[in-house]
Amino acid sequence: MTSRKGNLMGVRRDVKVVDATVRDGGLCNNFEFTDEFVRELYKTNIKSGVDYMEFGYKASRALFDEKKFGKWKFCREEDIRGIVGENVSDMKISVMADVGRCDYKTDFLPKSESVIDMVRVACYVHQIPAAVEMIEHLHDLGYETCCNIMAVSQANMNQMEEALEMVCDSSVDVVYLVDSYGSLYPENASALARTYLAAAEKAGKKVGFHGHNNQNLAFANTIETMSYGISYLDATAQGMGRGAGNCAMELLLGFLKNPKYNLYSLLIFIEKYMLPLREQGITWGFDLQYMFTGQLNRHPREAIQFTAENRKDYCEFYKSLLDNF
Amino acid sequence: MTSRKGNLMGVRRDVKVVDATVRDGGLCNNFEFTDEFVRELYKTNIKSGVDYMEFGYKASRALFDEKKFGKWKFCREEDIRGIVGENVSDMKISVMADVGRCDYKTDFLPKSESVIDMVRVACYVHQIPAAVEMIEHLHDLGYETCCNIMAVSQANMNQMEEALEMVCDSSVDVVYLVDSYGSLYPENASALARTYLAAAEKAGKKVGFHGHNNQNLAFANTIETMSYGISYLDATAQGMGRGAGNCAMELLLGFLKNPKYNLYSLLIFIEKYMLPLREQGITWGFDLQYMFTGQLNRHPREAIQFTAENRKDYCEFYKSLLDNF
Repeated sequence: MTSRKGNLMGVRRDVKVVDATVRDGGLCNNFEFTDEFVRELYKTNIKSGVDYMEFGYKASRALFDEKKFGKWKFCREEDIRGIVGENVSDMKISVMADVGRCDYKTDFLPKSESVIDMVRVACYVHQIPAAVEMIEHLHDLGYETCCNIMAVSQANMNQMEEALEMVCDSSVDVVYLVDSYGSLYPENASALARTYLAAAEKAGKKVGFHGHNNQNLAFANTIETMSYGISYLDATAQGMGRGAGNCAMELLLGFLKNPKYNLYSLLIFIEKYMLPLREQGITWGFDLQYMFTGQLNRHPREAIQFTAENRKDYCEFYKSLLDNF
Repeated sequence: MTSRKGNLMGVRRDVKVVDATVRDGGLCNNFEFTDEFVRELYKTNIKSGVDYMEFGYKASRALFDEKKFGKWKFCREEDIRGIVGENVSDMKISVMADVGRCDYKTDFLPKSESVIDMVRVACYVHQIPAAVEMIEHLHDLGYETCCNIMAVSQANMNQMEEALEMVCDSSVDVVYLVDSYGSLYPENASALARTYLAAAEKAGKKVGFHGHNNQNLAFANTIETMSYGISYLDATAQGMGRGAGNCAMELLLGFLKNPKYNLYSLLIFIEKYMLPLREQGITWGFDLQYMFTGQLNRHPREAIQFTAENRKDYCEFYKSLLDNF
């Protein structure tokens, strides 16, 4: 068992905070953020000391109709530049691309012509070979790359270890442990983190964590896995993200002891831009229906439907989940 | 370092779940629950497998005006019996009594004449001698006793260890680690838990945990401290409790693997009785103002005030907290 790294008072200089508000939060509002929202979030993140800001997905315009989504599902170069210009800041810019749902061979410019710094490749365990192919292509274009292996709580341990080995053998920079269903407890999240770290450190790679808040554990799992050496930490303003949402940026920035991180700007952003989103009726965050899917280790789709229908018959819903196991 | 006890799949038969909804939740609504609410919660707890239900405080009627509070601040024997009769169930009944704010010498019947099974004595570190005197009195009357040492995150380690030793030398049955300000992280909560367990196990005592949700960590800290051997676990329906509230019973029951615990009845209770409380405007639960006081390790009184005033200027509030450090 790898031991804990650092302590609760010290600064871990290897830590990188990744804001995924527009990307994961975009799943709550169809990526329809105003330019003002995204621009203010960009400024806020810079002032808060955030290390990476993820602008959204680089989804295939052949597979998805651009008229049906906000622009951050596609993250065209000119749209990002419309917000950041040449990005004359220390903060880096990332986008996510799903294996099988993007046109990575045509949609990414060489890094020298792009303001994007990092591309995060999201895949399921069975898509690792396709992910590795994407990673090599993007690495050759000059980007930093991550591999976000989703739904690991449903993969078996042998698959997981083989997948990790394949990813760590690639040119990837960061491998992400993703608790897609919010089903991990700190005890098994940290055990998985140690497995990831053992594989990654041998290959000179970093490890990241992306939590979901189905059991109110996104923040707990983030700091627990961090304590064992995970260094790329995803968070979103007010935890905005699909279903139960993610680790809240305000909890994370309040926890980290590095003085480069600070809360003030984020609080003002929350007052001015996040509270109005809620008032518009955009919903996310911990609730019983998401707790059930987290406890049962399954996709939140039925819980999202339950929420959309404004249902409150939790017990009936819970029974229906158990009926369809 | 004591190692973890049990594992995530097994049953820990030493675990006792304590429902504190009426007691800690009473701090949100001045203990003004209807008899129907309390009776249905009592039935729900029995069906859910809960081990103890706490009915409220046994507060001094000389110090507090009975007209100004609901009856569960005083927990008269006849009021409890009005709900539970002779309590012909496996679930035990507890009440809390604060050192210096109760008349324990006159207000407790001998156990043989009472339906109360357990008295939880709440105190600060400097009140330990007074707590021990109460514990001995209540123990002699025939009650199970707990000592809930509050605000330990502000006590120094020497004080803590001396206090623990004194309590463990008494007739107390259970010593509680109480994260009053919701300032503990799983890593230091479990370190404190191991200190408590080391002292308690030597003396043949059990240890409990009572969390607050200021940093969304009440559940995480509960299961993390449990994993090291803490066995009395406090929770409340929907986490109802002062300020940010407590560990949510539904999260805890969904986590525990002992088949005696089940969620169904609690879900129905939540639908029928907890949602209406929220609709009536009774508020509790995680929010930024409580996160600040948790992060700063201080009493939530200013945050409760901020909530009562319906303020949303989080950044100004945060600055004012730092000004008054």
